[in-house]
Amino acid sequence: MSDDTSGSGYVAGGQEYQRDSNYITDRITADGAGGWKVEPGRYRLVVARACPWANRSTIVRRLLGLEPVLSMGICGPTHDERSWTFDLDPGGRDPVLDYERLQDAFLARDPHYSRGITVPAMVDVPTRAVVTNDFAQITLDLSTEWTTYHRDGAPDLYPEHLRDEMDDVMQRVYTEVNNGVYRCGFAGSQRAYDKAWTRLFTALDWLSERLAARRYLMGDTITEADVRLFTTLARFDAVYHGHFKCNRQKLTELPVLWAYARDVFQTPGFGDTIDFPQIKEHYYVVHADINPTKVIPMGPDTANWLTAHGREELGGSPFGDGTPPGPVAAGEEITAGHGPGGIAHR
Amino acid sequence: MSDDTSGSGYVAGGQEYQRDSNYITDRITADGAGGWKVEPGRYRLVVARACPWANRSTIVRRLLGLEPVLSMGICGPTHDERSWTFDLDPGGRDPVLDYERLQDAFLARDPHYSRGITVPAMVDVPTRAVVTNDFAQITLDLSTEWTTYHRDGAPDLYPEHLRDEMDDVMQRVYTEVNNGVYRCGFAGSQRAYDKAWTRLFTALDWLSERLAARRYLMGDTITEADVRLFTTLARFDAVYHGHFKCNRQKLTELPVLWAYARDVFQTPGFGDTIDFPQIKEHYYVVHADINPTKVIPMGPDTANWLTAHGREELGGSPFGDGTPPGPVAAGEEITAGHGPGGIAHR
Repeated sequence: MSDDTSGSGYVAGGQEYQRDSNYITDRITADGAGGWKVEPGRYRLVVARACPWANRSTIVRRLLGLEPVLSMGICGPTHDERSWTFDLDPGGRDPVLDYERLQDAFLARDPHYSRGITVPAMVDVPTRAVVTNDFAQITLDLSTEWTTYHRDGAPDLYPEHLRDEMDDVMQRVYTEVNNGVYRCGFAGSQRAYDKAWTRLFTALDWLSERLAARRYLMGDTITEADVRLFTTLARFDAVYHGHFKCNRQKLTELPVLWAYARDVFQTPGFGDTIDFPQIKEHYYVVHADINPTKVIPMGPDTANWLTAHGREELGGSPFGDGTPPGPVAAGEEITAGHGPGGIAHR
Repeated sequence: MSDDTSGSGYVAGGQEYQRDSNYITDRITADGAGGWKVEPGRYRLVVARACPWANRSTIVRRLLGLEPVLSMGICGPTHDERSWTFDLDPGGRDPVLDYERLQDAFLARDPHYSRGITVPAMVDVPTRAVVTNDFAQITLDLSTEWTTYHRDGAPDLYPEHLRDEMDDVMQRVYTEVNNGVYRCGFAGSQRAYDKAWTRLFTALDWLSERLAARRYLMGDTITEADVRLFTTLARFDAVYHGHFKCNRQKLTELPVLWAYARDVFQTPGFGDTIDFPQIKEHYYVVHADINPTKVIPMGPDTANWLTAHGREELGGSPFGDGTPPGPVAAGEEITAGHGPGGIAHR
């Protein structure tokens, strides 16, 4: 898979791309029934800004206001075959876990751990061991198990009465879009690519239709479904269009999705988690088998993410009866601009 | 260089891209002073539809109506390390030269020939040997030395009174745009790429400004300068934007250049020489060191090349007092459509 570190090759010649989805699936719950109880200050969420799967958790943590009870460690945008690393931190070590490499937290959990070292990972701080790297469950549990610690005005990102429909929508977004872009980029044959490309744009057409007259994927307010779609759309023109050959159109050429994506980007908790330079550096440097020169494109300009989108006309409000999250926590600000400087990649 | 066949590597690690411009520079002239006299039926122009340097000669030959006196051999879109080949012809052999590989025409000229096997190449049919592959001179000589055989109403593509300014414009278009896209794509370091990208888009901004209020590069009618710019613009979104990372914008996002490019494309003699599927196949398959999977992107749709451009408002007329060329010669038609089917790459 893209965001683990198992091996240097992403393309299997002649084959369709298959994501390795073999995760540590423990859950951290309110009642601690499985051995891991929700407790303030006990866990550390380890992410990389570049990774779309980790990006889900950085958005949800911020929307729910969990920063005071769940700290966050941030790996740099690139990794080697063995591990994501804390190379952005002073001395190259995570200040809480005191590791250089995320791999050490997996080995603390299992000395024989041999699967992918992936982000996001929830780490138990006392034992410095990974509890779970099951990205899809991590965010749902932040919404449903950490409720005691949600901020006042936090949105319900996984409302009970919508779950049946939401699960279907999110499943299709996952297989066709979130994973669909990787299926294009890592296709091992022309035939696999052609099929993948058609699937992806069929799904984007479906989403354009769904979002033409509704503000968010599930209606008038944001939910986890929007979080999951957004993390792929945010990377579309910067990476997937060229690097993964997802090039029927740029996102900016798909009017409904582009307006939707900007609407979400400009909502507190979304765009303020996006680091375009780190995103570009990750994909173009790590996937040496599809970009052997490791050269990172200068374009596109990302200032257009801040332009007017006009979606207010559809009604709705991102947080419904709730409120937006406050400012980004100290030390977690994105330092690269989204303005004209956003085209810089260093 | 891109369109020769010398070696399989196009990127020199750590270095700026340098085009090998070591050509056979004999000239075919009206007086035959250098040993090669213009004669009807004596020479064969060998091209590949994919190659922008060869594309200049296919356009100029058609604009000047030289088809009856200068035959054309067409190599397939891909080549190996040794040579372009006539794999599109029945039996895989050029029907006039009776060669499988263009290399044989270079070896007929010089049995020890060791430089690039490039298109376009002018071949002397009686001896089956290359006369010249000096692409920049070939088209100018078609305009100035083959005048006896120009069709009635043929344009003057290299007017005497404009040559000083034209030479400057064409030199800048060559170094900054025609070759500039290759400098981006084959950059051997991030630094070399960044510089190349900036140079390219600086030049495109200059061209946008120049063309904002003037129909063609030199004024009211088409010239060789337009031929040379057009061959790069025609390949921009299909190849250079993604494959060469020329991605500040797509051509379709540069309003003046996009309207200009469509105006020229829709002029007889230009768009009818463009084979998008062969163009894409060439670049994405031949440059394995920047596209190791050799997967060819499905997009973008090229039907938009036929949309209204509005440039008539600027006045001028492509052929001035002359006339457009007639229909494409039998056997030289582009079989792949420019319509919705143009996104197919097979």
